Amino acid sequence: MTVFSVALFGAGRIGAVHARNIAEHAATRLKYVVDPAPAAAHALAARFGAQVAAEETVWADPEIHAVVIGSVTATHADLIEKGLKADKAIFCEKPIDLSMSRVDEVIEVVAASKHPLFLAFNRRFDSGILEMKQRIVAGEIGPLELVTVVSKDPDGGLPIDYLKTSGGIFRDMTIHDFDMARHIMGEDFVWVQATAAALCDPAIKEIGDIDTACVSMQTASGKIAVITNSRRASFGYDQRVEAHGARGLLRTENVPQHMLVAEREDGVRRAKPHFFFIERYAQSYANEWAHFVRVLKGEEQPSATGEDGRKALQLAEAAYRSLETGRRVAVSA
Amino acid sequence: MTVFSVALFGAGRIGAVHARNIAEHAATRLKYVVDPAPAAAHALAARFGAQVAAEETVWADPEIHAVVIGSVTATHADLIEKGLKADKAIFCEKPIDLSMSRVDEVIEVVAASKHPLFLAFNRRFDSGILEMKQRIVAGEIGPLELVTVVSKDPDGGLPIDYLKTSGGIFRDMTIHDFDMARHIMGEDFVWVQATAAALCDPAIKEIGDIDTACVSMQTASGKIAVITNSRRASFGYDQRVEAHGARGLLRTENVPQHMLVAEREDGVRRAKPHFFFIERYAQSYANEWAHFVRVLKGEEQPSATGEDGRKALQLAEAAYRSLETGRRVAVSA
Amino acid sequence: MTVFSVALFGAGRIGAVHARNIAEHAATRLKYVVDPAPAAAHALAARFGAQVAAEETVWADPEIHAVVIGSVTATHADLIEKGLKADKAIFCEKPIDLSMSRVDEVIEVVAASKHPLFLAFNRRFDSGILEMKQRIVAGEIGPLELVTVVSKDPDGGLPIDYLKTSGGIFRDMTIHDFDMARHIMGEDFVWVQATAAALCDPAIKEIGDIDTACVSMQTASGKIAVITNSRRASFGYDQRVEAHGARGLLRTENVPQHMLVAEREDGVRRAKPHFFFIERYAQSYANEWAHFVRVLKGEEQPSATGEDGRKALQLAEAAYRSLETGRRVAVSA
Amino acid sequence: MTVFSVALFGAGRIGAVHARNIAEHAATRLKYVVDPAPAAAHALAARFGAQVAAEETVWADPEIHAVVIGSVTATHADLIEKGLKADKAIFCEKPIDLSMSRVDEVIEVVAASKHPLFLAFNRRFDSGILEMKQRIVAGEIGPLELVTVVSKDPDGGLPIDYLKTSGGIFRDMTIHDFDMARHIMGEDFVWVQATAAALCDPAIKEIGDIDTACVSMQTASGKIAVITNSRRASFGYDQRVEAHGARGLLRTENVPQHMLVAEREDGVRRAKPHFFFIERYAQSYANEWAHFVRVLKGEEQPSATGEDGRKALQLAEAAYRSLETGRRVAVSA
Repeated sequence: MTVFSVALFGAGRIGAVHARNIAEHAATRLKYVVDPAPAAAHALAARFGAQVAAEETVWADPEIHAVVIGSVTATHADLIEKGLKADKAIFCEKPIDLSMSRVDEVIEVVAASKHPLFLAFNRRFDSGILEMKQRIVAGEIGPLELVTVVSKDPDGGLPIDYLKTSGGIFRDMTIHDFDMARHIMGEDFVWVQATAAALCDPAIKEIGDIDTACVSMQTASGKIAVITNSRRASFGYDQRVEAHGARGLLRTENVPQHMLVAEREDGVRRAKPHFFFIERYAQSYANEWAHFVRVLKGEEQPSATGEDGRKALQLAEAAYRSLETGRRVAVSA
Repeated sequence: MTVFSVALFGAGRIGAVHARNIAEHAATRLKYVVDPAPAAAHALAARFGAQVAAEETVWADPEIHAVVIGSVTATHADLIEKGLKADKAIFCEKPIDLSMSRVDEVIEVVAASKHPLFLAFNRRFDSGILEMKQRIVAGEIGPLELVTVVSKDPDGGLPIDYLKTSGGIFRDMTIHDFDMARHIMGEDFVWVQATAAALCDPAIKEIGDIDTACVSMQTASGKIAVITNSRRASFGYDQRVEAHGARGLLRTENVPQHMLVAEREDGVRRAKPHFFFIERYAQSYANEWAHFVRVLKGEEQPSATGEDGRKALQLAEAAYRSLETGRRVAVSA
Repeated sequence: MTVFSVALFGAGRIGAVHARNIAEHAATRLKYVVDPAPAAAHALAARFGAQVAAEETVWADPEIHAVVIGSVTATHADLIEKGLKADKAIFCEKPIDLSMSRVDEVIEVVAASKHPLFLAFNRRFDSGILEMKQRIVAGEIGPLELVTVVSKDPDGGLPIDYLKTSGGIFRDMTIHDFDMARHIMGEDFVWVQATAAALCDPAIKEIGDIDTACVSMQTASGKIAVITNSRRASFGYDQRVEAHGARGLLRTENVPQHMLVAEREDGVRRAKPHFFFIERYAQSYANEWAHFVRVLKGEEQPSATGEDGRKALQLAEAAYRSLETGRRVAVSA
Repeated sequence: MTVFSVALFGAGRIGAVHARNIAEHAATRLKYVVDPAPAAAHALAARFGAQVAAEETVWADPEIHAVVIGSVTATHADLIEKGLKADKAIFCEKPIDLSMSRVDEVIEVVAASKHPLFLAFNRRFDSGILEMKQRIVAGEIGPLELVTVVSKDPDGGLPIDYLKTSGGIFRDMTIHDFDMARHIMGEDFVWVQATAAALCDPAIKEIGDIDTACVSMQTASGKIAVITNSRRASFGYDQRVEAHGARGLLRTENVPQHMLVAEREDGVRRAKPHFFFIERYAQSYANEWAHFVRVLKGEEQPSATGEDGRKALQLAEAAYRSLETGRRVAVSA
């Protein structure tokens, strides 16, 4: 069996998730960890028998088949371009860049390369979402009519300093939901309508951001998708998707922390959903990596590409324009 | 114990539901059934030991405390006015009338009367919704931020001839959801946005109606409510409500037809939701009657009044204007 | 349509349940209520348009097709015999009698009559159990191997004075579970083993009764059934049945009081099961009555007969002998 | 932070599970893999940056703090003794040995050592069971009265050649459930009663084994535990535990493969439970390793010891004697 050697950029939280999945997959081996912070790089490398390396070592090593980009957003676009030039396949955390023009440049570079870029919209690989998409494609519920995405962050997850530079809720948080709605619907949206408010935290209002929102979208054929968001779910990470079709409904429920049920005089209690995305989506990261390995083997095309990143961003922009104008806004093609 | 004697107008499907609840309640007795179809009137009266009577007998009988109006819509407004004049308390199925000006007239007559009008928005009395409202009022989830109403009719429920005269989905079906959203939110909505399409049935498109819709609304304080509708849920009656607040989420699930779970190689199967509103809301009709008895005893004010019917209708009108204009539409006060 | 006239013996709690179901069923009419307590009889009769009558009136009235016996246990055997002699079909609450020899006499009288005796093991008519039995018979889970019955009374349901005369837990409470295990298994049991203790209440220990028990039983072909009992479920009425077969598992869950789910920082809470059998089994009583109407029409044989009552009692006796001897006990045929 | 170096005996299925958990835990490092099959040893070692070594190298290396014994059963007792002698802490898969006298010898050697032996009853570390045990100890449901363990293997899991040498269902499969019942109850059992049959497979009957069983047990204070077993659950791995106490019920449900719900005309379907123990108990193995690390740090005592293995085996022996004699059997102390 071919074993693909992989270099990882970024030894932080998400880097550690990918390192583990690379090490555990029988067809991949973590060779290098690259990170400006040497202690983090060394600790992660040691755990999985990898070496700490400089960026140049990665580009120069012909044994490296693929790079995983889990470093800070500002580095993504450059690393993608350098990696493709060095003949590596690319696995990159979203977003490619916060600027639409820079995103467009990168998409062109990818188009000209023979190597794939997989953009890591990991939620597509949640076991429930994989099953949902497969059944929709198989026609289990007939033509789709209505897609609903509930997406709420756990309470207290985000410091205001982070939010200031986040680009706003639609670009930072709803971006996952725009992608999910497109992925499940399997059609592009042509109209966007948004309603929103800052209800959770006065600090969010002060910086001009919003924390509670509803976005409705419609495809050219009239199908409807609705996203509801909140920055504050007191009970954990609230992530549910529904696809309603002519012959049925597919819906995912939150994943409970454990399967204990307590029945007492004060009611029947179950576990809360997982609180944080690392636990909630642990399995989706592993599934995502297995997908990327199949891409490396030439068995599959990347599920999500630069173009998908770009389209999610367009929906975010349209949602902001709808908020400002009070109108249904056409999505620029 | 006082036993209130009641006259029932309408011996059809909904009349039979009310007849049973009147008979079963220890504090009420069904004395008269009034219906233009003698066979239906006699059959229903016989089952619960009541008499068939003409309208005039009801108005003239001082023993009758209250009348239940479950006859066709066109008769509602007149029967309310006659009943109040004859010193009866009124329990009336919605709507009061399809014309807003006639509704306003009736509301004035009620205001001038010493007797109550209860407008039978029965879903408020669903056991899950009663519990939800009570907990919201008790502050269990803190201030509300987002209310979601999913409301879908079972597939094949409605003949096209009915739909032609229904007034359209927002006035006929969503009207219940507008009332539910107002009831749960406990605040009025000032803005309405709607997206909709005819996806289920070409016949619905032909008559200019829609069958799939999303309506978002916002209160003056910024709180958001979202309604999603479909005329076609293949699996039964899909009726779910969610209230998201600063300290938690309250949500109702569909009521399954039975509690059997089948675990086999092909998956884990449970019962579908009830298919039809008579089964789904059987308990809510009984609870509604118990509420009306407490109104008769002077223990409670009517949960829903003519004014509530009027406001639900205003939201329906605003939703239509939003569809036409593509704009966020202000609700007329 | 034929409408069957019915006389009801017993205007107590269970009598009221039957009165309502008789009144509501389109094919039956409640004509007489018989009860030694005139006030109760009159109140119940008035509610459903029936007359209060003496026993003799019932036997003498040729219009009466059937009698429902919901009076105290000591009257059951005599009323069954008198009713059959007077040419009535019989619906009788269990047990026929506490003495096995009297039960045998009654079974002989029934055998010699052309009229049916239905013994009201109402749990067979729970919607989940009806569905379970039907699917087992249809072969949905293949041959049965293991049946499990969990049956626990709500805490605080029973006064010690009642328990003193109850005949003990196996004859009073487990009797329902013995019938359920036989009904679901569809085979008779040949061996019984029991383990038990008085853990809930010192008063129960003092009167020599037990309150926590496990009974295992085996059929001639080796199939196993297990009953677990407790007199004290703090959270309500705990009634669950599982049937495990070669190709799957069918199991019923408790029926929640409502469908509200509350998700907060302290967990996800749902409603408790119904607390009392009147609410829990309301639907089963209605279904049971519909079954009896089909028996009256000659469309079905009684689901449960005197023989079923007798066999459940035999299992109770065997369970007591197993407790005393510490042995597996053969069930007398 | 101290990092403990670990040697792993056995590079098979369970060895791979432990290797991954050792590598992932920040406080442990996999240094050696020992296995008679060089290919398996090398593959596993390479994945986590470990070396393949001979047994003697492990004993001689003072850097090794602990050994994990995941090799075949026949090697367990010897490796435990050698490991303790070489000053290593021991993590050993159950059982210590199939012979009770050899188990007793090992328990004595452990007693004389200053190093701990942890016997890997991994189900104690299932997230639901951890939560259940903690809440019982905290008194959340009051004194226990009734513990129920449902434990069924997925259909088709075991070849008949394996079963021939397994020691029989009680020693091979129920052994986990005996430990679970003891662990949850927190008291020893003094009486055992068993009912069993070979219903699933004629081949199991031919080798004199059984495949469907019910075992009830009682503590000195009268508390009852019931285990039901089957070798054939068509829908996957059926593993549920219930603890009923004076103030409530704690119960674990099976873990579904994903959280998708499909609602269609043919019912509401969810995912089956995990089919195989590796997936079902993946989290419990990681939790078990985290526990062992706390044992290494001196923060906790081993949750399960040689004595626990011995007691589970005694219950298995008593269950066989009950089957043979048809009697309630006292457990030898």
